[in-house]
Amino acid sequence: MKSDVVLLGHGSGGKLSHQLLDEIIIPHLSGISLKNQNDSAVLPFRGERLAFTTDSYVVDPIFFAGGNIGDLAVNGTVNDLAMAGARPVALSVGLILEEGLPLRDLETIVRSMRKAADRAGIAIVTGDTKVVTRGGADKIFINTSGIGVFDHPHSVAGDGARVGDRILINGPVGDHGIAILAGREGLELGNDIHTDSAPLNGLVADLLREWGEAVHVLRDPTRGGVATTLKEIARQSAVDILLEENAIPVRPSVEGACAILGLDPLYVANEGKVLVFVEGKAASGVLDLLRGHPLGREAAMIGEVTSGAVAGGKVYLRTAIGGKRIIDMLSGEQLPRIC
Amino acid sequence: MKSDVVLLGHGSGGKLSHQLLDEIIIPHLSGISLKNQNDSAVLPFRGERLAFTTDSYVVDPIFFAGGNIGDLAVNGTVNDLAMAGARPVALSVGLILEEGLPLRDLETIVRSMRKAADRAGIAIVTGDTKVVTRGGADKIFINTSGIGVFDHPHSVAGDGARVGDRILINGPVGDHGIAILAGREGLELGNDIHTDSAPLNGLVADLLREWGEAVHVLRDPTRGGVATTLKEIARQSAVDILLEENAIPVRPSVEGACAILGLDPLYVANEGKVLVFVEGKAASGVLDLLRGHPLGREAAMIGEVTSGAVAGGKVYLRTAIGGKRIIDMLSGEQLPRIC
Repeated sequence: MKSDVVLLGHGSGGKLSHQLLDEIIIPHLSGISLKNQNDSAVLPFRGERLAFTTDSYVVDPIFFAGGNIGDLAVNGTVNDLAMAGARPVALSVGLILEEGLPLRDLETIVRSMRKAADRAGIAIVTGDTKVVTRGGADKIFINTSGIGVFDHPHSVAGDGARVGDRILINGPVGDHGIAILAGREGLELGNDIHTDSAPLNGLVADLLREWGEAVHVLRDPTRGGVATTLKEIARQSAVDILLEENAIPVRPSVEGACAILGLDPLYVANEGKVLVFVEGKAASGVLDLLRGHPLGREAAMIGEVTSGAVAGGKVYLRTAIGGKRIIDMLSGEQLPRIC
Repeated sequence: MKSDVVLLGHGSGGKLSHQLLDEIIIPHLSGISLKNQNDSAVLPFRGERLAFTTDSYVVDPIFFAGGNIGDLAVNGTVNDLAMAGARPVALSVGLILEEGLPLRDLETIVRSMRKAADRAGIAIVTGDTKVVTRGGADKIFINTSGIGVFDHPHSVAGDGARVGDRILINGPVGDHGIAILAGREGLELGNDIHTDSAPLNGLVADLLREWGEAVHVLRDPTRGGVATTLKEIARQSAVDILLEENAIPVRPSVEGACAILGLDPLYVANEGKVLVFVEGKAASGVLDLLRGHPLGREAAMIGEVTSGAVAGGKVYLRTAIGGKRIIDMLSGEQLPRIC
């Protein structure tokens, strides 16, 4: 039975999110085809290309281990531009503040935004601030939109996966989601769980400069985690994917927390990770490059594209004990307000 | 005594908003100088210019006479681009939805956005949807960010006002604010009060094509109304301004509502109006052009720039009965969540 109101699951990044997009938002709003649903739009401009993207951040709590809503909002949009292969250049900031928010918290958050923008080399060029009455919002919501330019001719998009591509990731999965959950619930989960929020544009620039056309897809597995993101790419590229459970890096502390909380790390959000689809023959070189970057020291090869031209492509997981099961998108809501 | 928490007045567009911007947001976030605080940023790109702007919409109620939060969010950002003299080309949409929002309402709103975008000739190219738990937001908030390009070499910005400039407006003031207030409070204020929300890019394009360099400043008097917007321009351009109260068009129904509610129409928000500063010798020609446009039939010349190089420039009003008084920015909050 379908709902006639917005549900939390509509914001999960998973099945319900895609249903909302496919049935209401995309047909009536933008008409963007599935094939072209990427983290950034790429626009023609005077013979060049521009990348353009937007994200709103409603994370709860607004301060958490390793970061806050401010640097998260900058890194997230920087990464969406990087995933298109673009170099982020300009950022807008839209603040929605709840009456009563301590100005000291606001100052901490905007300072973090500036620091994150400086780190990523992107300029904050325009902004807007709205205030709503107490109870009309929860502390602070931030929208960041970004513009990027292209320093190379390569196209990187979610429909680029090809049979034989290897799938790499730049480090362990699930850190961000578990850090947020721990912060929200006041759980003591050990000292090494903190958000992985980081700007990936430098790593992506290195990757594209060295490996250019061998790189077919880049996407950051945020809401819905690695599983949902790979399922999106499988649909978009019409390919099947096989993941190796043993190869997917997960910190023991995150794995332990997931076991206790009944979560699968494959579905937990990341904010500093990128899934890289590369030609088979480039895979070991790309892995070396990732491992040589400060944000990729624990990079791993986690799967491959096994067959092509598959409408509604599937993602399979070869489990640690040798079985094989189908991985689907996140169904319903696992962790609301994770970003 | 200064507050140490966010107040409703920080979102008014008036004095407290400027204080928040000047003391916390701008120094720590962007470092943009007063002189350059315009509705859009103008960025150099490959020898050309790009305009970039952002706005979040938190209007309450979300449906009101003549429009809803969706078309308001499109028109508002289209207008911010137009105020820089740019032609709007691409729009992003960030939705924050409260759990429980009827999907039918969401569909109505996104349909209105698409219709408004089509009317303004701007493409919705990228988007994002977040959902927060019931009570964590109020129904729906929308961020729209936009990119514009320049079809001409003219620069139009808030620091461009010169002594002798005439100040024109394309129609009566206060319609939007009073329509929202009426909708929120369930007031019966007559049938002819509805939002003036409209895309001004066509009118601005005509204006710049015909009158180019004679046009010195364009700005839409939204939050804080005509008074606050003119005070902003006076500060930015370091000029004094004299307004003629008799010349400022206000619908009798809006004037009546303002009288009953204790509001000054000069401080009430507009969403389809533009203040145009032009060289004195072009003023009557520009007035004719405005009156010949469907969105400018009731245009009027309402004031002039009387002196220059005035730090913290002042705005004076010659009142209907012949007196002269100083007009300041909106102080505190008049109508929260007006846009």
